[in-house]
Amino acid sequence: MGTRYNLIAGQSVERLAALSDGVFAVAMTLLVLDLRAPAVETIHSEAELGRALLALSPRLLVYLMSFTTLGIFWVGQQTQLNHLARSDRDLTWLHLGFLFAVSLMPFSTSLMAEFIAERTALLLYWANILLLGAMLFATGRHMLRAGLLAGDAPAQIGLWIERRILIAQTLYAFGALLCLVNTYWSLGFILLVQAIYVIGPRRGVLGRI
Amino acid sequence: MGTRYNLIAGQSVERLAALSDGVFAVAMTLLVLDLRAPAVETIHSEAELGRALLALSPRLLVYLMSFTTLGIFWVGQQTQLNHLARSDRDLTWLHLGFLFAVSLMPFSTSLMAEFIAERTALLLYWANILLLGAMLFATGRHMLRAGLLAGDAPAQIGLWIERRILIAQTLYAFGALLCLVNTYWSLGFILLVQAIYVIGPRRGVLGRI
Amino acid sequence: MGTRYNLIAGQSVERLAALSDGVFAVAMTLLVLDLRAPAVETIHSEAELGRALLALSPRLLVYLMSFTTLGIFWVGQQTQLNHLARSDRDLTWLHLGFLFAVSLMPFSTSLMAEFIAERTALLLYWANILLLGAMLFATGRHMLRAGLLAGDAPAQIGLWIERRILIAQTLYAFGALLCLVNTYWSLGFILLVQAIYVIGPRRGVLGRI
Amino acid sequence: MGTRYNLIAGQSVERLAALSDGVFAVAMTLLVLDLRAPAVETIHSEAELGRALLALSPRLLVYLMSFTTLGIFWVGQQTQLNHLARSDRDLTWLHLGFLFAVSLMPFSTSLMAEFIAERTALLLYWANILLLGAMLFATGRHMLRAGLLAGDAPAQIGLWIERRILIAQTLYAFGALLCLVNTYWSLGFILLVQAIYVIGPRRGVLGRI
Repeated sequence: MGTRYNLIAGQSVERLAALSDGVFAVAMTLLVLDLRAPAVETIHSEAELGRALLALSPRLLVYLMSFTTLGIFWVGQQTQLNHLARSDRDLTWLHLGFLFAVSLMPFSTSLMAEFIAERTALLLYWANILLLGAMLFATGRHMLRAGLLAGDAPAQIGLWIERRILIAQTLYAFGALLCLVNTYWSLGFILLVQAIYVIGPRRGVLGRI
Repeated sequence: MGTRYNLIAGQSVERLAALSDGVFAVAMTLLVLDLRAPAVETIHSEAELGRALLALSPRLLVYLMSFTTLGIFWVGQQTQLNHLARSDRDLTWLHLGFLFAVSLMPFSTSLMAEFIAERTALLLYWANILLLGAMLFATGRHMLRAGLLAGDAPAQIGLWIERRILIAQTLYAFGALLCLVNTYWSLGFILLVQAIYVIGPRRGVLGRI
Repeated sequence: MGTRYNLIAGQSVERLAALSDGVFAVAMTLLVLDLRAPAVETIHSEAELGRALLALSPRLLVYLMSFTTLGIFWVGQQTQLNHLARSDRDLTWLHLGFLFAVSLMPFSTSLMAEFIAERTALLLYWANILLLGAMLFATGRHMLRAGLLAGDAPAQIGLWIERRILIAQTLYAFGALLCLVNTYWSLGFILLVQAIYVIGPRRGVLGRI
Repeated sequence: MGTRYNLIAGQSVERLAALSDGVFAVAMTLLVLDLRAPAVETIHSEAELGRALLALSPRLLVYLMSFTTLGIFWVGQQTQLNHLARSDRDLTWLHLGFLFAVSLMPFSTSLMAEFIAERTALLLYWANILLLGAMLFATGRHMLRAGLLAGDAPAQIGLWIERRILIAQTLYAFGALLCLVNTYWSLGFILLVQAIYVIGPRRGVLGRI
């Protein structure tokens, strides 16, 4: 009985993509709510305003890092959805789990910006990235197992996707570990890894990541 | 005169789907605004930060519950829209009523998170779920009566949809009733029902829900 | 020179529709941010919570009114866009002006909810509705004059759209005038007009609106 | 290895457009959160409410300016995306950089509205516009170099796009320079430039911009 409903539920790749784009767009833009103009009462001169804005720059960096994280995972999810012939309700729910992790990013980011020197904040931030990676790994695997791939998808797409996620997550985990030294080392390393993914070098050791 | 306008108004299923995906995406992401990083002045050590975050965990659970609720109703609405050949203005307005209930979820969730032990908060939360179910039932029924179904939709789709909503709402109503014992019993039961809908078991008693 | 760029700019109806759905979705959901759970410190019993929530009910009514207003104008814009063959940059900018009026609704609503008995708040709210109507009238007229209509659009569509907007705006203006008696009379009348547009009666005097 | 993944990543123009429309829609609507109804405790008469709202009017002007800025860049990006045959991952990341600049607009706007007479605020606002222009220039150039243009795109589209951006940015830079006189001169000049772009005159000197 219930299974009959389940057969017709959650089949639209287009709507999954639309909901995903919406959640990413809102999460990406909500991050900025964390960046607030200094209160007008506390500023008495142009120099004070300059100093107050300079004090916001670590927040801006954390925000840029989160925007990039969301961008990387948006590209990753898009790559999977582009090669889907259709969805099923399990895949839909795995993607909803992924979107749940996306919707947590503004909170993790705000926590990180507020407590930039605390390991707890950094580890929660990393846990959020780990959840994003784990869910995307699960959607990739289910897509292959349930035969939802489009006919023209490259044969090795599953291998490429899984390899990509595993390498990235290993690097993120190493970055998180660096907080044993100092949370700034962690942040610097994570930013470096992200820069490589954004630039996407085509040659050399980095081109193999 | 007016009816002529009404004949051409509100016919686009695509735009209804796009607006719906937008409202769901914003509502799902706004829930998180309720999760706020503790104020930096109140935290003096890593241990205090850990305790403050632990104190947020019931909120995280309520938020997860609301995200899941929205996910369940998003899948439900999508399943209906996927089988529409076209819309009419009455169906459009019924879906707008459904979206109104969606847009109330961040408020109900925030109330529930703030007053987790109060029956009033739980009953309002349940009333929101009831409104979601009632509107989705109404859109399903109108879709069938007005002959808006696509030609390739399964013949029994109306029966499946109505049965699904009635069983789910009965379970939710029972969960709400449990607040006579304790609001935590209600929450636990509702979370259990949702877990079943997310996992969507294919066999046994649960597979018949 | 510049005109050559203008010839290729702003032609996509699909993207205009997507941006519009996004702005409507965000505006509709942001309204709810105005509804806030009472502060936990001010509530000491279930009865106090009930009273605090009851005190929110006028706000809920204003919110419902604004959601309905946005719904009416969303259906109105959609009806125009559905019959477009293509857009041009002037039409795009007229629609952006319309979306500006949409984005002001959360502010007008918040003002109205806060100062429900003040004429200034009601007149600003009405001014927002007037701006929405005026922009939609302008987009309708430009669409006809610039020959952007799809081939299969009904011949009299322009007449229907303009007649519809003029009658609605006359009713809203009369509603606003009622604030000379009392702002509650205005609100009641506007809600009544909206109810008629939502239900869309097919017969009798109301069917001719 | 990595390059193989890069070959299949970020190819969907539709999803890039959908994410962009989402980010623009949220940013355009979030601007309004800066416009807040005056606190009910501070208002004791209709006249006081009128004065409090009048005091908000410079904010409304800044908000209108930002909405227009976002509108101009939305039309600009749309014009590029409309003529794309496909995307690649570099183009996707350049557009994500552009969207980052879009997501900063609510912050720049809020800063500008709060410190309307301070050069620092104006220069940061201008820096945001410069970043938007620079990213859009980069996406335009990459689109041409990487041969991503659709077959039916006008041959000189690249020239038109680059010329358009360079002229606009020169005007904005001149407007920013005017803050050496006074920030209000800057604002006035920028609003004038925007009005020309919105109206898009077809003849005379302005038609050549």
